Amino acid sequence: MSETEKKGTSRRAILGAGLAAGGAIAAGRVSAAVPDPLITQVQPWASEFGDPVDATPYGMPIRFESHVVRRNVPWLTESPISSINFTPIHALEGTITPQGCAFERHHSGAIELSKSDYRLMVNGLVDTPLVFTYEDLTRFPRHVQTFFCECAANGGMEWGGAQLQGAQFTHGMIHNMEYTGVLLRDILNEAGIKPEGKWVYVEGADASSNGRSIPLEKAMDDVMVAFFANGEALRKEHGYPVRLVVPGWEGNMWVKWLRRIAVYDRAVESREETSKYTDLMPDGRARKWTWVMDAKSVITSPSPQAPIRHGKGPLVITGLAWSGHGKIARVDVSLDGGRTWTEAQLSGDIKPKALTRFHLNIDWDGREMLLQSRAMDETGYVQPTKDQLREIRGLNSVYHNNGIQTWWVREDGEVENVEVS
Amino acid sequence: MSETEKKGTSRRAILGAGLAAGGAIAAGRVSAAVPDPLITQVQPWASEFGDPVDATPYGMPIRFESHVVRRNVPWLTESPISSINFTPIHALEGTITPQGCAFERHHSGAIELSKSDYRLMVNGLVDTPLVFTYEDLTRFPRHVQTFFCECAANGGMEWGGAQLQGAQFTHGMIHNMEYTGVLLRDILNEAGIKPEGKWVYVEGADASSNGRSIPLEKAMDDVMVAFFANGEALRKEHGYPVRLVVPGWEGNMWVKWLRRIAVYDRAVESREETSKYTDLMPDGRARKWTWVMDAKSVITSPSPQAPIRHGKGPLVITGLAWSGHGKIARVDVSLDGGRTWTEAQLSGDIKPKALTRFHLNIDWDGREMLLQSRAMDETGYVQPTKDQLREIRGLNSVYHNNGIQTWWVREDGEVENVEVS
Repeated sequence: MSETEKKGTSRRAILGAGLAAGGAIAAGRVSAAVPDPLITQVQPWASEFGDPVDATPYGMPIRFESHVVRRNVPWLTESPISSINFTPIHALEGTITPQGCAFERHHSGAIELSKSDYRLMVNGLVDTPLVFTYEDLTRFPRHVQTFFCECAANGGMEWGGAQLQGAQFTHGMIHNMEYTGVLLRDILNEAGIKPEGKWVYVEGADASSNGRSIPLEKAMDDVMVAFFANGEALRKEHGYPVRLVVPGWEGNMWVKWLRRIAVYDRAVESREETSKYTDLMPDGRARKWTWVMDAKSVITSPSPQAPIRHGKGPLVITGLAWSGHGKIARVDVSLDGGRTWTEAQLSGDIKPKALTRFHLNIDWDGREMLLQSRAMDETGYVQPTKDQLREIRGLNSVYHNNGIQTWWVREDGEVENVEVS
Repeated sequence: MSETEKKGTSRRAILGAGLAAGGAIAAGRVSAAVPDPLITQVQPWASEFGDPVDATPYGMPIRFESHVVRRNVPWLTESPISSINFTPIHALEGTITPQGCAFERHHSGAIELSKSDYRLMVNGLVDTPLVFTYEDLTRFPRHVQTFFCECAANGGMEWGGAQLQGAQFTHGMIHNMEYTGVLLRDILNEAGIKPEGKWVYVEGADASSNGRSIPLEKAMDDVMVAFFANGEALRKEHGYPVRLVVPGWEGNMWVKWLRRIAVYDRAVESREETSKYTDLMPDGRARKWTWVMDAKSVITSPSPQAPIRHGKGPLVITGLAWSGHGKIARVDVSLDGGRTWTEAQLSGDIKPKALTRFHLNIDWDGREMLLQSRAMDETGYVQPTKDQLREIRGLNSVYHNNGIQTWWVREDGEVENVEVS
């Protein structure tokens, strides 16, 4: 199979001169025949009025797309209050994740907190402890940047080979949004950090509080206190009215409903950074402070929830790549389980610490494929195989699985999650 | 007023040592006093569970943001079926416009057309007339790009000085989305353009059909046949499942529910490009083929729907700028009705033919202001005043008003739409 299409393969029907009399079309593997009642007869949508402009002040997706929704896996957690759901990445394209279907992770449910009730306290080792209202925060200089947010457990079930049937479930604990907010460093500088302050401890206003420690160096670098995502206010389930954005670092640190920022001389070593969000190694010890999400990628289509329906011929393979260390430099795609690789096209903007879309156009010969993608970031780091990861980290961990995913495309176009060695 | 904040102005409350006993805070013009019951007492949101992850498979904005919606102006058109509504740009930030509140313009209502019923015909002066199904189109190479879509009539009511009270109504016939789709030129090349083909005529599947002529040069350049916007399928009201994206050109040409692309040797001179979407000049003649949207900008906050509520001191002025000719090079802001100008900061990505966000941080002294913004694009073109436009084009036109907008900020922070000469 070649990277580019072979000449002569057809994506469409040909309206040949000889067909004017009404013959059906045999040429090509896809597409409409002419005469096609959908173009030769007047249809209701072309002869009746549609919806007026006052029908939907705030619109939702059309009913035909009702399958493109967040889904949870009931057996994954004891309760949906402290649980996660998954972005339908198999059905999305481009790089932006709409808020409406961007995954959620709550530790005690998504709370409803109004702007007027919102307060942010800054205390600890600061010159002047402060309390901000929502409106106060909007008076700091604003910044606009796009970042991915990935749960550290994304792909966690695949460590032991759960082989969930769909990119939504294997890789859907991720979203990518354009944030507008202020820099955490501007807020910290307003309070004034004492010389002995070395860590920041951030807490949410929900019952779990989900406290996490962040080294001051990161807090003073690119961390945002964000109010807007994809142009509008954050959604309730993503931390309305204010969440922390910690570019490139695991999603658990992106504290929602942000209520307190404390400066300390050491890390708090909270529950969320000791018994959780650490990586248990084969020797019984746990790696901690594994904040950065390493380079990773996945083919979103074809994939188990997005099989090939059009038969052989031209096929667009599409997927996502990302790295918490910076920009994606390159993505390779394999059709044969990693034996040979072809460089994919990176489509659209390539931003640091943000989802990057890749495409590879092939001419599918209709034979089975073992599809894989492999990301490389600007540091030169190359996404490893799952076996390479397991060799070092064993099977105890649920976090930081950035191993290469394999999809088995069958001759009938159906796709399954498999492992190759 | 300086571009940067003056030292000593306060955005926040100070938790001074002497306040531990419970004194209220007088320092600063904003913000919470401590003790503040919202941080010193346990609140329901911090002691009760919130929503589980299976509550909203596809989420909507939180109820507190129910004012951030599209609005129409009932007197503007005879019927809401052939009408327009407006993006709430006064309440948005960053650059992306969420689909749910992105303006709509229909000529015979928003139709419901499924992917299985969708057909695209390519005919006229082509070697091989073609009909594509939706799936056929997805087999062409995909592209991802962000563009603004602006109705030619955006600001049209302001030609004669309607002075509508809000950026949503004066400038809200615009949105900005990340599109994924295929290039029109790839589709045209598949059909093969005959040498005498010089124009493309595009039609929608709705009853209005909204046919428009596009010179072949543009059609073969950057025009997209798009399926996805902001990562997900187009919404019904934006042309689901397929719309044309004509970067930098007036929104009327971005044909929704795209059903036919015909190649001709001349322009069709349809209703939509003769009696409509032309600019009637003072001498009674009409400018036609005024496709490109010239450089323009508007301050979105403060603005009539987004007054200053926090009193004097630090104020973030924010707005949008765009040009159909390429990238925005610079935006200047005036606080005194255009007598003096300060260069604003361009925030986030600066993409060609896409909305660009600007910010200017000032220290407001509490006196009235006449706020203006002035965009310059990479060609060197500078946004004109409304009077400069009227001098040349008179008062007959409703289209292509890219004049500088003035907001009068009163001492109490309320804002009005005014004109200055």
